[in-house]
Amino acid sequence: MVQDIHFNEKTMGMSDVGFKALAAALSDLAAMGAIPRYALVSLTVPNNADLTLSQQLYEGLYACAGKYGVAIVGGDTTSSLGGWVITVQVVGEVEAGRALLRSSACSGDVVFITGFLGCSAAGLDYLNAVSPIKPSADQLEALEHLIEKHRRPFPQIRAGRALVQSDSCHALNDISDGLASEAWEIAEASDIGILLNEAWIPVDPDLNMYAELSGKEALDWILYGGEDYQLIGTVSQAQAEFVEQEFLRKQLFFQRIGEVTDIFTGVQLLKKDGSTVDVPKKGYNHFA
Amino acid sequence: MVQDIHFNEKTMGMSDVGFKALAAALSDLAAMGAIPRYALVSLTVPNNADLTLSQQLYEGLYACAGKYGVAIVGGDTTSSLGGWVITVQVVGEVEAGRALLRSSACSGDVVFITGFLGCSAAGLDYLNAVSPIKPSADQLEALEHLIEKHRRPFPQIRAGRALVQSDSCHALNDISDGLASEAWEIAEASDIGILLNEAWIPVDPDLNMYAELSGKEALDWILYGGEDYQLIGTVSQAQAEFVEQEFLRKQLFFQRIGEVTDIFTGVQLLKKDGSTVDVPKKGYNHFA
Repeated sequence: MVQDIHFNEKTMGMSDVGFKALAAALSDLAAMGAIPRYALVSLTVPNNADLTLSQQLYEGLYACAGKYGVAIVGGDTTSSLGGWVITVQVVGEVEAGRALLRSSACSGDVVFITGFLGCSAAGLDYLNAVSPIKPSADQLEALEHLIEKHRRPFPQIRAGRALVQSDSCHALNDISDGLASEAWEIAEASDIGILLNEAWIPVDPDLNMYAELSGKEALDWILYGGEDYQLIGTVSQAQAEFVEQEFLRKQLFFQRIGEVTDIFTGVQLLKKDGSTVDVPKKGYNHFA
Repeated sequence: MVQDIHFNEKTMGMSDVGFKALAAALSDLAAMGAIPRYALVSLTVPNNADLTLSQQLYEGLYACAGKYGVAIVGGDTTSSLGGWVITVQVVGEVEAGRALLRSSACSGDVVFITGFLGCSAAGLDYLNAVSPIKPSADQLEALEHLIEKHRRPFPQIRAGRALVQSDSCHALNDISDGLASEAWEIAEASDIGILLNEAWIPVDPDLNMYAELSGKEALDWILYGGEDYQLIGTVSQAQAEFVEQEFLRKQLFFQRIGEVTDIFTGVQLLKKDGSTVDVPKKGYNHFA
């Protein structure tokens, strides 16, 4: 996480930065179905930085590490003439040969997600709004939920483990750069097409509220906003019901949002009006 | 490795930066006697950077990875409004319970190093010299050796392994911030004193030449210069001869430079004139 790219003083406290830096790394383990074990933390600290900021950063790191049973076992600290850079690298374990990949989606598979999308991007949008909206008390509470989702995302470790244990998941990816970008990654890695169904994509009520309040499109945040750290995966039609029941039993969220096809490659969206449109391969790209 | 802290355009090419970033991380494995296995590389790239610089960086990373049998298995790339930051984290393996530590030095131990020190700092001094010296052809060759040691250090993996296998090494540390700083780390972690003997400390002939040419002290670079990535360790008096023979047999360098004592704690230097002086706990400190 790089200061002024992933966060700034307005959008996140340093404790949030620590929490999220580790959470984002753990999300890559969740996407393979792995159990988190160890983390290494490398800090690049502005040479005039206030020491209490490092302490806050570590409070956040340890809060996340504690929640997911991760041991922070090493790292490095260097100074910088620029801003903060927090690099977290994680080591996890998964049963031999059973790590989930992006490249195993099959034509006919059901495409699913593990939670609401777009909330983090909407929270960030509100934090960065130039002319702040004056929300009511109810609206303010909803906005705080969105902000919390931007600042303290929860990597889907339990869902990843449930998918490995179900022995039914074909492909899996975590959603760090938006649904469109991550669906494209599976489509390209598996050489298949993904048809998303707009009517099936769940919309968080808080996100819906803020979309209306701000005059923006919830679907844009869902498709092209990042940092929700939910999972997108595929399972065969025959096993989808079983996986859904397993998720229900474990109090995990499972929502069908589309299907895998060999009629085209890439990602398309079946809109509520019955038309089908290409979904561009975009999301947050550091070098776009 | 942080641009304008660890390197700049004058001191290193990007290929050197890649090589050295991995080499420095591997040195921490050498210091524990581990076999390198995997590396994760996280790059923070200025958002206007020339792509060929990344390619050069990876050429250097792969050159070092190939030399030490390390697989680069992942990482991350982000943009930055500041300079380059290269974070390399490595995973290695060592026999259970046999990793070498800083905290196991015993009174009476022999203190040894695995190679010449101060060369990297002298090479850097020459690269940064404001009024460059006009060297002769022979001197130029020597200076190029010093520069090469600054740009392409060799972590002492084989020496670390030899020490684990000898089952005779008490404490071990790698010399990334100068002999003084790393001897202090062992002294403090082991709660003992280290008496270095100036007459025993080997001085690289190229270093000696540049010290004379520049009117500076070779011993200053040895004690307080960093980034040589040699090892400093301790073995019992009884086993020192055996370890020295093992090193000789494996064509590794072993040089006694002092002894461990419980008469004082910290680090002292027995000078050539017979006097003993305290060695300050200094070296390169990012936040000094």
